[in-house]
Amino acid sequence: MEIHVAGRIADADRGPAREACSIERAFSLVGTRSAVLLLREAAYGTRRFDDFVRRTGLTEAVVAGRLRELVSAGVLATEPYQDEGKRTRQAYVLTDSGRELLPVLVALGAWGQVHLPRRGASLTHQGCGALVLSDLTCEKGHDVSDGDIVASA
Amino acid sequence: MEIHVAGRIADADRGPAREACSIERAFSLVGTRSAVLLLREAAYGTRRFDDFVRRTGLTEAVVAGRLRELVSAGVLATEPYQDEGKRTRQAYVLTDSGRELLPVLVALGAWGQVHLPRRGASLTHQGCGALVLSDLTCEKGHDVSDGDIVASA
Repeated sequence: MEIHVAGRIADADRGPAREACSIERAFSLVGTRSAVLLLREAAYGTRRFDDFVRRTGLTEAVVAGRLRELVSAGVLATEPYQDEGKRTRQAYVLTDSGRELLPVLVALGAWGQVHLPRRGASLTHQGCGALVLSDLTCEKGHDVSDGDIVASA
Repeated sequence: MEIHVAGRIADADRGPAREACSIERAFSLVGTRSAVLLLREAAYGTRRFDDFVRRTGLTEAVVAGRLRELVSAGVLATEPYQDEGKRTRQAYVLTDSGRELLPVLVALGAWGQVHLPRRGASLTHQGCGALVLSDLTCEKGHDVSDGDIVASA
């Protein structure tokens, strides 16, 4: 796969144009270890603050701050719940927008499985047990994994 | 898409098993803003140290350190080049392993285009001009974008 640069950002030295890049914008929102771990746990079904803390090994302060950030970014949403005789608390669940981020995490994990082999979790297709891979297509349904991509602005 | 947790990591509170997760391993290697910007530039065809510095806006020290790290991780490789009457220098090019990371960046950018809309670069399929999207398949070729994924260890 080759990425060709076109339009405004083809002027390679116009930093600002490159900084408008959607890759960088998205990374600035979800590109922290704590965001990745929290999104991974949310994808695994974790919903409660204490469980996020215990299952990520992050501090309560980091989890609280990052969850707030992910909620305000619309990636997570809060849902009130109440345990018997306890006060109402907030659970955190992936929004549609958050779900649409999972392919990014899975693509990253799929790469890690191949290039950073080590005993650990692997992601497989429930239907057939084969390893999950990431692929690139276009809105018209063409496979662009081996095709050419144009980055333009 | 749902991710189901199975095996060793289904015991949600066994942090170490979760930390073996290939998503986290890969993120720890390439999950820094500087790594993302340098890989983006490499994908755009940037090869020379000075160009990486100018086009990312990162400091020379950060670029030098991160390029070294990406080379030792096998994501970038060095290629000597020599300008007329200058000493030999190293150019940096994506390896096959580095190329296989591009779907992760494109998936991240595709998400950003939809969920963080702002004027900026967009990634389209050269063949037809349609927006590039990321998809998940399995080794057997099944589409798992809407399918179920099992994370196990």
